[in-house]
Parts: sequence; C-alpha cells; structure tokens
Amino acid sequence: MEYKVLAGGGITAPQGFKAGVAQAGIKYQDRYDLALVFSEYPAVGAGVFTTNKFQAAPVLVSRQHLAAQENVRGFVVNSGCANACTGEEGLAAARKMAQVAADVTSCQAEEFLVASTGVIGVPLPLEKVQQGISQAGKNLSLEAGALAAQAIMTTDTVPKEYALEVEIDGQKVILGAMAKGSGMIHPNMATMLGFVTTDAAITKECLQEALVLANQDSYSMVTVDGDTSTNDTLVVLANGRAGNPLINDPQGESFQIFAAALKKVCIALAKMIARDGEGATKLLEVRVLNSAQMEDARKAARTIAGSSLVKTAIFGQDANWGRIICALGYSEAEFVPEQVDVSLGELLVAQKGKGLAFDETKAKKILGQEEIVVTVDLHAGDFAATAWGCDLSYDYVKINADYRT
Amino acid sequence: MEYKVLAGGGITAPQGFKAGVAQAGIKYQDRYDLALVFSEYPAVGAGVFTTNKFQAAPVLVSRQHLAAQENVRGFVVNSGCANACTGEEGLAAARKMAQVAADVTSCQAEEFLVASTGVIGVPLPLEKVQQGISQAGKNLSLEAGALAAQAIMTTDTVPKEYALEVEIDGQKVILGAMAKGSGMIHPNMATMLGFVTTDAAITKECLQEALVLANQDSYSMVTVDGDTSTNDTLVVLANGRAGNPLINDPQGESFQIFAAALKKVCIALAKMIARDGEGATKLLEVRVLNSAQMEDARKAARTIAGSSLVKTAIFGQDANWGRIICALGYSEAEFVPEQVDVSLGELLVAQKGKGLAFDETKAKKILGQEEIVVTVDLHAGDFAATAWGCDLSYDYVKINADYRT
Repeated sequence: MEYKVLAGGGITAPQGFKAGVAQAGIKYQDRYDLALVFSEYPAVGAGVFTTNKFQAAPVLVSRQHLAAQENVRGFVVNSGCANACTGEEGLAAARKMAQVAADVTSCQAEEFLVASTGVIGVPLPLEKVQQGISQAGKNLSLEAGALAAQAIMTTDTVPKEYALEVEIDGQKVILGAMAKGSGMIHPNMATMLGFVTTDAAITKECLQEALVLANQDSYSMVTVDGDTSTNDTLVVLANGRAGNPLINDPQGESFQIFAAALKKVCIALAKMIARDGEGATKLLEVRVLNSAQMEDARKAARTIAGSSLVKTAIFGQDANWGRIICALGYSEAEFVPEQVDVSLGELLVAQKGKGLAFDETKAKKILGQEEIVVTVDLHAGDFAATAWGCDLSYDYVKINADYRT
Repeated sequence: MEYKVLAGGGITAPQGFKAGVAQAGIKYQDRYDLALVFSEYPAVGAGVFTTNKFQAAPVLVSRQHLAAQENVRGFVVNSGCANACTGEEGLAAARKMAQVAADVTSCQAEEFLVASTGVIGVPLPLEKVQQGISQAGKNLSLEAGALAAQAIMTTDTVPKEYALEVEIDGQKVILGAMAKGSGMIHPNMATMLGFVTTDAAITKECLQEALVLANQDSYSMVTVDGDTSTNDTLVVLANGRAGNPLINDPQGESFQIFAAALKKVCIALAKMIARDGEGATKLLEVRVLNSAQMEDARKAARTIAGSSLVKTAIFGQDANWGRIICALGYSEAEFVPEQVDVSLGELLVAQKGKGLAFDETKAKKILGQEEIVVTVDLHAGDFAATAWGCDLSYDYVKINADYRT
C-alpha cells in the first residue's frame, strides 16, 4: 500500500470540504476560537466519544445526531468553553450551535455535529458563539482549513493537521484531518478533539468500524496526564466524491486499504498530540513486544507512557529504567517478570527482569534526544502495541496550576 | 472508645520493643540508612505487600518468613537501595539481611522480616548492609525508635512516627508505628513502608485480619503520584506484653477495639505520607459520601485525589472543580451525574452535576489553606470513603527528574 502525504494538507484536503472560522471571543481574544467544517455534498459520519460518565452537552448532541441521521453535512467546534456540566441550558446551547450552523448552510440541525473544548462548568456564551458560527458559515473556503486547526486549540502550542492520498480500487482517495490535544489526554480514548474528512465512498457502518479500529491503535494509545476528559470526540465524515466503488464490506480489500489509511492519519495526529502535551519537551514512544494477548501489550504500553515517575525521569534525562519496570508491574498486563527485557533506544538496560551494567554516557545521549523510544519485550507471545506520551516538566505544572485565569 | 496519643512516641513505644540504627553508607552519606527493630519477646506478625507484579527481593523474603514461621522477632530496613529487579543475588542478599539480624539477636533468620527502599535495579551493597545490621543490633535501645524513623527515609522531608494507648479488657495496650513514603505512592496499597509494633496479645490470624481492615481505609487510600512500587510493605508485630486476654475472635469486642486502634494508627501515618508527598505544599483530603457501594466511594475518592489536573489546580489554588467532576467521571464508580454535589471546604461549587455561581474570593481563601477538603456527595446510597493526596508542584518534577544522581 502506498500513501502520499500531502504536505500542508488538512481538513479541507479531500474533495468537497470547506471550512470557515471566526474570532468569537468566547474566552480567548484576538484569535480564532470557532471553526465550521462543511461538506458541499451529503456525507456519512462516524464517531467515537469519551468514556467519562460526565458527558459534555456537545458530546450528547453529536451522539444523538449521528444515531438519528444517515447524512452528516459538517461540524462546528469552539475552544475556550467545554460546555460540560452545564445542565439543560448546556444541551440547548449545543443544539443551538448545530441549528445555527445548519441555518447558514441551508441544512438540517441534525446534520451537524458539535464539539467544544475549554473550561468545564462554565455556561457557553451563546450569543457570541452564534455570531461566530454565522460568520464562519458565510466565509467557507479551502484555505480556512489551516485556520480551523488553529481555532480549535486550547493550550496546544502548534496547530495539528495532516492529509494523505491513497489509491482505492483505482481511484485517488484523500483523507484530511485536524486535532487538538494538550491536557486531559489519556487512553479511552485520547481525551481530545479529532476530526477527519475524506472523499472516499464508504457506508456508514464500514466508516464506523474503520474508525473504531483506527482509534484503538492511535488516540486510545496517547496519554499526557492520565485524565480522560468530558468532551473527547473523534469524528470522521466521508462524502464519496472520490468516486471509488462504494466500500461496503468490512472483509474486503478496499475496506482494509481505507482502514489502514485512516489509522495512519489517526496515528500521525495522536503523535502530534503527545509531542505537544502540556509542557512537553520530548515525545515518548513505548513499544511493548511479544505479549500473550493484545490487551496486555496495550495496557502495558499505556501504563508505562502514563507513569508520572517515568515521565519525570525522561524530562530529567535519567536512565531510571526501574520506573519502567515498576509501571509495567502495576499495569495489570500478564507476563513473567523474569522474562522481561527493557531497552532505551537501542540500549538494552534490563534483561530477564534484572538490571544490566550499561553505558551511562550512551544512555544519557539517547535520553538527550527529542524522541525517546522505550521498548519492553515480554517474551510471552506474538502481540505488540505502541503508546505515545511525553515528559512531565515544570511547565506542565505551570500551565495547569492556574488554567482558568 | 478512648485513645491516648503518646506524644513523641513511635516504634519502640509498646513494651518489649527496641530499635537500633546505623550509618551504613548504602547510598546516602552521613545519615542513618539502616534500622533494626527487635521484640525482646516472641511476637506474631502480619503483613500486606505490594500488588506490583515485580516484587522486590525483600518483599518475597518477608512473605516467605511470615508464612513459614509462627513467631516473628523483628525486622530490618534499609534506605538507598530497593533491592528490586536484582535476581537471585538480590534474593540471597535479602535472606542474608535476615540472617545477620538473627545472628546479632540470637534468633532464627526466618523470625526476621526485611524491607528495602530506594533505587530499583541496583545491587544491594551487601558488605555495608551487613556491617550496618551488626552495628544496629549491638546498640538496641528505646531511644533509637525515633532514629529508626529517620533511617528509613528516602525523599521524605520529615520522619513519620506515631503511638497511641488504648484500653482493651481492662489492660493498657500500646501501638507504635513508623512509616516512609514520599514518591511512588498509590493505592493498592499505599506504596510505602509502614511498620507497626504493639504489645497487645492477639493471634496471628486476628492480627492479619485487623491489618487488612486497617490498610484498606488508610494506606490503600493514599496517592501521591499514581505509581505502585515494587517494595510496598506494611507489617505489624504483636508481642503480647500488655497482658490483655488474648484477642482471638474477630467478632469479639476486644478485636473491634484493637482493629479500630490499628486503623487509627495507620490513618495517622497515611495522612503524614500524603502531606509529605514529593514536592507537596498541601494535604488534599477527598471525601466521597453516599455511594451505592463501598467500592464506588473508594474508587472515586482515590481517583480524584490522584488526578494530575486536580493536583495542579490545588497547587495553583484554582477552584477548577470541573476537574474534580471529570476525575469522578472516569473513576469507574457508579453514580448518576445529575445527582452529584461538589464542595471545596464548606463551599458548595456544583450541585446536581452542574456548576453554581460561587464566591471566588471565598474559594481562593479555602484553597489558600494547607489542608484542602473536597467533598463529593453522590446521593446514591449509604457508603462513604476518604482518600488523601497532595498537590502537584514544581518541586515534584524537580525531585523526580534526577532521582538517581
């Protein structure tokens, strides 16, 4: 399978998608804080949402709309206010966001999905949001795709977008995406907002299945701080404009190609989220190899990537592999302690569950890099999983000690 | 039930217990790093150990000795090296520690328990440790109880000891204790070393049951950083010198009194551990009320106390209660979101799952104190649980970024 990454591409890269943005002034001033993404043609949609028992109003509304409607035409996103724990008024506000987006694009409210990110428990300033949506909807363009990726940022330091092209049944299909992450990032799922558009022709059922598969190896394997938010949303819209034969068989080759491409897009964004975790100075990639069950590898990789002690050691460039072993030990993954090998980069530091005398200078050099790969070999079977995280720095504390003000 | 807290009392407060310490130079210089606690009379012992799959050598040896022997005569503890992930040599070293302690006190090796704390994966400098144990064993005294609490410290900033007196069946019974904590502190169980001595007369079975009960409401409800260590150990020795009628019925009143006293001791130490968590500036107490099941209250309290985002908000004195709600939401506790109330101190900030307009000045004042009480009322039943933690500060990062050097 060959992919062509489209440099500079994002949410409007696939055919038929446009975006609009606005400076609604919800919390942030003098920056975009509202984005509307629109498919000029009917699309099908799929979504994966937070597992938190407190589900923000936009999550509840998006779930309802996805379940009720065959067609989805777009989504509207705001930063600066999560519209979570806001009761009936919050639900009404989220519905209103969809309604205003529908009005300005001459669609039905139920054809729009809604996402919000920001402080929990604060009412959405609906007047400002409505004005922002109207404005965004009147200025839809291809170029605003990049601005949309900016508009959805909170404590993110860089916008996150990605696009690639893949051939399916002889047709070029494009997938475009944007995401925001930064804090409250943890497995189940990666506690962030992620949006994918594609011009592939695919059934709603196949799209949902491909998204679930992509999510479990990407967003669900990212952790920044162990907190699963109330607003996590990952949605994908597919409008069929690529003209490929309809993908309708989850066992078929065209589905496999599409699902692999979607996973590639989601992993690319998940890594961007980890790398840009609050206060992060390094990307941490944890590979767990040869587990007896897939879930063991996943649990182990996520737990190690999420350990505060591993994260501070990585920040301090301290080859304290005992903390990796320790996190593996409480991950609830099944393995035999006496069979475990641990490597930092290419350097083996523990073998058969026991420390080796390793070259500290070499370790220091490896840990001085911006991408740290930790490999744990369980020698227990044939499964493997990778998780991504980041180091825990002074800036994480700084950013989060006074987030509301 | 009346308790008398014995000011300045610790591990040697009960009759028949003495302690010895040494400066073995294991890692730290010019400070005590080795403690031996000895009962001059045969005692019974009970223990609760880490749930981490990697169990340090001293944990394995202590488990074996407790299972094999009816009598326990004491324990030996070192700081500066965890003797974890050290293979067969590590096991032999832990056994040797018990043997040397037994030699110097004319007991059997199996009558001694062993505990270690410090860096994982580094071989124990056995020569130094042996010399330290011999020296400690030759200088047993009541006064060294306080020094023993110092010797077991790692990144702890204060020694932790506690003693109380309680009347059981007309006899004064004393319980004494010491603990160390600071990092790698998390439920199941509180990833630390805790030691209790008592002159109560009690069967081994009753002692174990009382310890399990005490542990689940104390050490198991403390979290500093979510990491469960390889070395967690909580042991209690009871030598019967108080002369109370033997406690041998877990349903009897004397058992209830003893178990309550032991729980009180363990909670006192657990709170000291939380308050002295690495980099902590505040003690965080999370009370979850009116859950449908006990386990719901426990999970919820621990998860909230362990959330990095809650902890940074507490450090920043930011009344960001949405993070409390959010942590509750992913705690896996059962509840109805629309019934949940949240208070900071006495200030109700969210009601029925929805934010209230509260007095920010009042909130700031509450969060400015050194002990912060968060109360979450689930309105779902009759159970309640309390967890303890601390804030997440710059110093936590500092302490952990370069722990080994």
